[in-house]
Amino acid sequence: MSRYTVGVDFGTESGRAVLVDVADGRELATAVYPYANGVMDEHLPAPLDHVVLEPDWALQDPEDYLRTFEHAVPAVLAEAGVDPGDVIGVGIDFTACTMLPTTADGTPLCLLDELRANPHSWVKLWKHHAAQPEADRINAVAAERGEPWLPRYGGRISSEWFFAKTLQILDEAPEIYARADRLIEAADWVVWQLTGVETRNSCTAGYKAMWSKRDGFPSDAYYAALDPRLEHVVDEKLSRAVVPIGARAGVLTERAAALTRLRDGTPVAVANVDAHVSAPAATVTEPGTMVVIMGTSNCHILLGAELAEVEGMCGVVEDGVVPGLFGYEAGQSGVGDIFAWFAERAVPPDVHDEARRLGIDVHGVLEHDAARLRPGETGLLALDWWNGNRSVLVDAELSGLLVGMTLATRPPEIYRALLEATAFGTRVIVDAFESAGVPVESIVACGGLPQRNELLMQIYADVTGREFAVAASAQTPALGAAMFAAVAAGPELGGYATIEEARHRMAHLSGRRFAPVAAHHAVYTDLYRDYVRLHDLFGRDADGVMKNVRRIRERVQGGL
Amino acid sequence: MSRYTVGVDFGTESGRAVLVDVADGRELATAVYPYANGVMDEHLPAPLDHVVLEPDWALQDPEDYLRTFEHAVPAVLAEAGVDPGDVIGVGIDFTACTMLPTTADGTPLCLLDELRANPHSWVKLWKHHAAQPEADRINAVAAERGEPWLPRYGGRISSEWFFAKTLQILDEAPEIYARADRLIEAADWVVWQLTGVETRNSCTAGYKAMWSKRDGFPSDAYYAALDPRLEHVVDEKLSRAVVPIGARAGVLTERAAALTRLRDGTPVAVANVDAHVSAPAATVTEPGTMVVIMGTSNCHILLGAELAEVEGMCGVVEDGVVPGLFGYEAGQSGVGDIFAWFAERAVPPDVHDEARRLGIDVHGVLEHDAARLRPGETGLLALDWWNGNRSVLVDAELSGLLVGMTLATRPPEIYRALLEATAFGTRVIVDAFESAGVPVESIVACGGLPQRNELLMQIYADVTGREFAVAASAQTPALGAAMFAAVAAGPELGGYATIEEARHRMAHLSGRRFAPVAAHHAVYTDLYRDYVRLHDLFGRDADGVMKNVRRIRERVQGGL
Repeated sequence: MSRYTVGVDFGTESGRAVLVDVADGRELATAVYPYANGVMDEHLPAPLDHVVLEPDWALQDPEDYLRTFEHAVPAVLAEAGVDPGDVIGVGIDFTACTMLPTTADGTPLCLLDELRANPHSWVKLWKHHAAQPEADRINAVAAERGEPWLPRYGGRISSEWFFAKTLQILDEAPEIYARADRLIEAADWVVWQLTGVETRNSCTAGYKAMWSKRDGFPSDAYYAALDPRLEHVVDEKLSRAVVPIGARAGVLTERAAALTRLRDGTPVAVANVDAHVSAPAATVTEPGTMVVIMGTSNCHILLGAELAEVEGMCGVVEDGVVPGLFGYEAGQSGVGDIFAWFAERAVPPDVHDEARRLGIDVHGVLEHDAARLRPGETGLLALDWWNGNRSVLVDAELSGLLVGMTLATRPPEIYRALLEATAFGTRVIVDAFESAGVPVESIVACGGLPQRNELLMQIYADVTGREFAVAASAQTPALGAAMFAAVAAGPELGGYATIEEARHRMAHLSGRRFAPVAAHHAVYTDLYRDYVRLHDLFGRDADGVMKNVRRIRERVQGGL
Repeated sequence: MSRYTVGVDFGTESGRAVLVDVADGRELATAVYPYANGVMDEHLPAPLDHVVLEPDWALQDPEDYLRTFEHAVPAVLAEAGVDPGDVIGVGIDFTACTMLPTTADGTPLCLLDELRANPHSWVKLWKHHAAQPEADRINAVAAERGEPWLPRYGGRISSEWFFAKTLQILDEAPEIYARADRLIEAADWVVWQLTGVETRNSCTAGYKAMWSKRDGFPSDAYYAALDPRLEHVVDEKLSRAVVPIGARAGVLTERAAALTRLRDGTPVAVANVDAHVSAPAATVTEPGTMVVIMGTSNCHILLGAELAEVEGMCGVVEDGVVPGLFGYEAGQSGVGDIFAWFAERAVPPDVHDEARRLGIDVHGVLEHDAARLRPGETGLLALDWWNGNRSVLVDAELSGLLVGMTLATRPPEIYRALLEATAFGTRVIVDAFESAGVPVESIVACGGLPQRNELLMQIYADVTGREFAVAASAQTPALGAAMFAAVAAGPELGGYATIEEARHRMAHLSGRRFAPVAAHHAVYTDLYRDYVRLHDLFGRDADGVMKNVRRIRERVQGGL
């Protein structure tokens, strides 16, 4: 008899449910629910659309998450014709840090009439970037006190993370902070809605909330130093009971069963994060193989048996990816979105016309033409920092650079230089891991880009000098969530005892492998020397040209 | 009774005749003759089109110059209804160095049947760039021997210049070199065709052929060191009799009169160069005011009472622009053509659509949107070296750079950054003159760009902190040639005794003046510091990123 699990992936614009066969990982049905209120970055939804948001804000509506369960889960059951009784588990993954304030029973504060018009009562999405002053304070106080957890985050806490967002609520809306019985990751909140049990997962706690398995959260004294009102924030509004991923959070309540059309009592896995949950879905549960999730940005996940300090990584968390191992995370904050910027803003009409003629998109034309160039032939070199630098330099104020243009430079050459720049960026990260003693022997790519862009994959292989395998699944986060659901169900229900076991049965590589060509790797190694030169020249110079130009712009825009 | 002169401007793609009123410089009629054989850079003209040219070649057909006289001069007479008897002089200006080999009677070697299929028998246009190895030899030998004339050219002789082209003929076609009784600038050759007299003008001799009023040409020993066959090149194939500009070369022969429909015996001025002849036409015949001829590239002309050594200038020639003064020349090798590159290769369809909707060109839309930005607001900074750097650094292998891009960067921002970069490039040149003790108090712009692009002019004023006036004439080279024609005619025929006198009567400024805005100048001075930083970082580092990337490309393209 077949057994199934459902993985639900909560993305930035939509939620996606996938129904998976536990025996072999086959994805039987997929359904996507585009969030009705999407990303709110200009104003609250009607009838509150007169409430305008400040720059860099990004909110979401928690009811969109419930509507994802309501629409997408029944849809995959119906499409696959599967009996809910054969579904042995549910798992979810989420963007992070995406967090919200709730009452003690889990009701989001934005659902309370009297608080709904206050933007701070809503969900702060991962890309809400308005808490930079708070992040600066978190970093300054931690550095001053020599907090021991700071090096685990490459020495820098991001404005995207949990306590920066928490501190912004406290700073700007102390009444919301006071009313919030709980402050919680949306990942954990949706699991709470399914199970009726509040849990906190080790992945978001570790990567986004400064928690570690050995040391727990930072001390109350540290929080008090940030703000006296924050001293007991962990005990008052979070929880010290952090559950390792792979565990069972609970089972579906009757109400959640009615919402999803699944059986009540179905096991639900502890929440997880989209990038990290992709690693086992890309077949990786052991050290030595890096997973690169390639999309609008790149996320690099690597497992290690030991704790090492790697320059400028995003974080290292024990049990953060696979129980029993240290999960390292690094990232590049702009990849696919740089290519999209180029295609949208810097490609002339003849390329668009050609795309229309061929019935393909602009990227297809550019890729085709760029693929006819040999490594080194563009005469161009770029720094891929259109959206800042997330790892190694950890500096959001860096910007893009392109050098080598002549009057003969053509769009496919620039396009290729941009692809290459992101590959060089990945090589810098690989080098940082290796020189810290964390080996990177091979690489598996997953995410949207590797499915579409063969040239990009070959360039990554040629630049890094390592073979790139590609995950079979085009939706590794949802598959990963479904795999953890099978672990939450456990062998007694037809699932698995460990994520390693699940990985051997449910995760697969595609047949597509990209091996480095020695001659290409040699040319790229020459170019990489110049990339590193530019990287250090512009990235390690605190008073450098990129910063000055940005400051001048800010001054001018501020009317000074 | 009105008196007129005709100025004929020989450009890259066409020749242009202008009929000018000597009393006030009014331009009564203009006629353009597009060269039938244009610029030959792929093959010789039919029926010799099977003769393929190597890369970087650029040839012209001397008969196109005669056809310019034949078509354009009668056309302006007819259009203005002027009696040829009232035309008191003819002057010409030319691109330079544009040179050709001829027989002793001035017959171009390419008109001889037995030599016509040899590309070296044709006119080598200024932008023929295939003589770089020869230029390298000229520079190496001069440096080794410590030749005293080298510093007058910023330490570097260009591959575009006279002896590089001469040496290429000798290297690659010694039989053509042997048959050439004369090697001559096309400027002087057309004057020879008009007057029957071979003259050599001080402007091309000085700027392009290493001649100076005080020291003449380099020594025979230097030429012998280049190549023993070249030892007596000056006496054998050139002439030591160099005539200062402003002098009369001769008068129209009967044959030339028949060709042009002018009277035989009409005085003809000594030849001149398009950029240099523009200075008096832009009202400048004295030290202190720089003339910037702004078009596809920028050329800067400045007069000085004394000889100074300015870093990386193109050349300084006594009598080179105005008799009795030192004429300094500097340049930026890419300006309008960078903007054209951007408009053609990097602007997305929506901007083109908007241009079509408004019935203007793409530059118009970009300028309109860029003008709404304040100085410093783009957050971008560029190095304007898409076509190399002609002055100060004197390095054709440098390339363009753009820094500061984010995912929010829009095309008008990049466009504005490119305009600004060329203005910073001009400021570097102004600073080089001033720090060498040659003052630049004010600036007059002429050429195609100042007529069209108001924003560009304001940016130049704001960046340099100097008022920019704009010449009244849109065709200063042809007007300048007509002014020198009036000097060649002299007061006895109703002309002028000196170019200064002609300038006071015939040259005018337009009413358009662009004064620097103090607040803009302050912001640009901040940005200029970063421009200079990038300029020195990338331009003064012989082993820098731009060179490496170029060398890697050359290696790859060479199949190595």
